[in-house]
Amino acid sequence: MSHSADFSCPIPIQQYPRVLMAHGGGGRLMHDLISRMFLSAFSETPAGTSHDSTVLPSPAARLAFTTDTFVVRPVFFPGGDIGSLAVHGTVNDLAMSGARPLWLSAGFILEEGLPMEALWKIVCSMRDAARSCGVRIVTGDTKVMEQRGADGLFINTAGIGAVEHSLTISPMSVRAGDVILVNGDLGRHGMAIMSVREGLDFQTKIESDSAPVAEPVLKLLKANIEIHCLRDLTRGGLAAVLNEIAEASKLRIQVDEKSIPIREDVHAACELLGLDPLHVACEGRFACFVPAKDADLALSILQADDPAARKIGEVISESPIVLLKSAIGANRILDMPSGEQMPRIC
Amino acid sequence: MSHSADFSCPIPIQQYPRVLMAHGGGGRLMHDLISRMFLSAFSETPAGTSHDSTVLPSPAARLAFTTDTFVVRPVFFPGGDIGSLAVHGTVNDLAMSGARPLWLSAGFILEEGLPMEALWKIVCSMRDAARSCGVRIVTGDTKVMEQRGADGLFINTAGIGAVEHSLTISPMSVRAGDVILVNGDLGRHGMAIMSVREGLDFQTKIESDSAPVAEPVLKLLKANIEIHCLRDLTRGGLAAVLNEIAEASKLRIQVDEKSIPIREDVHAACELLGLDPLHVACEGRFACFVPAKDADLALSILQADDPAARKIGEVISESPIVLLKSAIGANRILDMPSGEQMPRIC
Repeated sequence: MSHSADFSCPIPIQQYPRVLMAHGGGGRLMHDLISRMFLSAFSETPAGTSHDSTVLPSPAARLAFTTDTFVVRPVFFPGGDIGSLAVHGTVNDLAMSGARPLWLSAGFILEEGLPMEALWKIVCSMRDAARSCGVRIVTGDTKVMEQRGADGLFINTAGIGAVEHSLTISPMSVRAGDVILVNGDLGRHGMAIMSVREGLDFQTKIESDSAPVAEPVLKLLKANIEIHCLRDLTRGGLAAVLNEIAEASKLRIQVDEKSIPIREDVHAACELLGLDPLHVACEGRFACFVPAKDADLALSILQADDPAARKIGEVISESPIVLLKSAIGANRILDMPSGEQMPRIC
Repeated sequence: MSHSADFSCPIPIQQYPRVLMAHGGGGRLMHDLISRMFLSAFSETPAGTSHDSTVLPSPAARLAFTTDTFVVRPVFFPGGDIGSLAVHGTVNDLAMSGARPLWLSAGFILEEGLPMEALWKIVCSMRDAARSCGVRIVTGDTKVMEQRGADGLFINTAGIGAVEHSLTISPMSVRAGDVILVNGDLGRHGMAIMSVREGLDFQTKIESDSAPVAEPVLKLLKANIEIHCLRDLTRGGLAAVLNEIAEASKLRIQVDEKSIPIREDVHAACELLGLDPLHVACEGRFACFVPAKDADLALSILQADDPAARKIGEVISESPIVLLKSAIGANRILDMPSGEQMPRIC
């Protein structure tokens, strides 16, 4: 069977079919793994990368800085893998400050016994995701730990972005009257992971929504939308995000259930597993708080990127809770999830 | 028994004596862990920390950027713990570019069942190390994974520093005639870890050399020392570092064994375990390559910080190998370690 150039692993797999403890020991094998696999894949990185730290030009702007560790299981899932997720997740955290993502670091914890070709596939996936986001992976680190389960690997990415606007994008900037938008349909990432993990055979295969969102955010800024707050809808889903923002801003959030975009197959899968789709994580979705005057323009910009973008609610000058108006018109409190239902989805 | 304020854990340990999966699930428990433990410990961080990414002022200088993941076992060892090590390691990687360390990120992978008080102790240790290095921990992430062993936790730190000099500090800048200095005695970190792990009862308790080295590096720069290369002596020890630099610079490195500072107890412990001290990791030691004209001044600056600092060798215009002149005067090739002997020392 032939492989594409991408999947021709640069470490000789006859000799090293799996990761060994020595690949993390600081000697010849680690040196080879780093130079042949990581540096060759992340080849757009500057020459300084093989040094302890990388020197970068000053972006002459305020900086955004963030980190995220990825422990998702399984590591390959419909619509992505831990590598693309590790790039999208950190790029999106930078975008939530309205920053232009510039540089990423990549810290790997590899489990002894991880198949070398699986590692190469994940590294290629990170490279491709970084290219499509316009960011460079400029520094990294590799550790190897003893085999204990079938976990394989964990990836940490940290990211630096340039903040080229003068807004204060923060829960503290949310005001009564703000309109709340989401940039697409919710819950696909979490349900893609859960459907594989639970071995469920859904009629429609749900693919993760994992995707970078920096571009639509930068378009909003370019159109002079006065963004008050952005927040990506990851762990805990929309429910956790809205509760955190209600608490931080000390304002009430009112959302309208029937306006929240959730696909039929995601609804069905959630019902099967007894999950509330508003608690389910996304990886390419965010909530955007804007003043009412800018809401229509902001929505049209988001819908140009994804027609499923919607206005889902608004901020009210009342005690800080989240109210959900159901399809039949009754209001109920949308609580923060307790946090146990969906471990390791990112 | 009374506890100091530092060790009064802000999470109620009667209720939550150990980390639960729900502490990583995105709901109320995770929210409490982050706000009560991480944000309260890293309290010098700006208000933006609870957002997805933190916005920082532009340092108006070139930036150094680095990352390191810490998987050391045991997590508490003589002279430090995984928390202080995670701060020192990244601060030192920044220092190796001659950068002034400014900001760190902290990404935690916690194992379900980790005692909450152990986590708090490690978090306090990170806070204290960051304070003493003059850096701020400004952004973070927490994941929880299922219990599988007694591993407890992993910590990734990434760091940003300001490069306020105009040198190119890199293996590529090394020149024939350069003098090689080290800033203190070698091998204590690795042997502190190994002595605990092997259950050996050494006469002298060896404490880790884990310490920040940004200050002596900034003093060298302030004195206008023309630093060609800096490299911290972590995994693989002095032998790995010298081999990497010989290879990158395509120059021969000649070192003098009797000038390499190694304490008697470290020598003895290495002999007991059959280890070469030149392969053993340090966490507060670096090699410094400077032109001969600057060597005496550089050495006196390093010795003011640690009297054990030494000149250990020089760079020669010959084929790129590392030669070690033994105490009896014979030259032997000092090879790159194969990498298996000391896993998980950082």
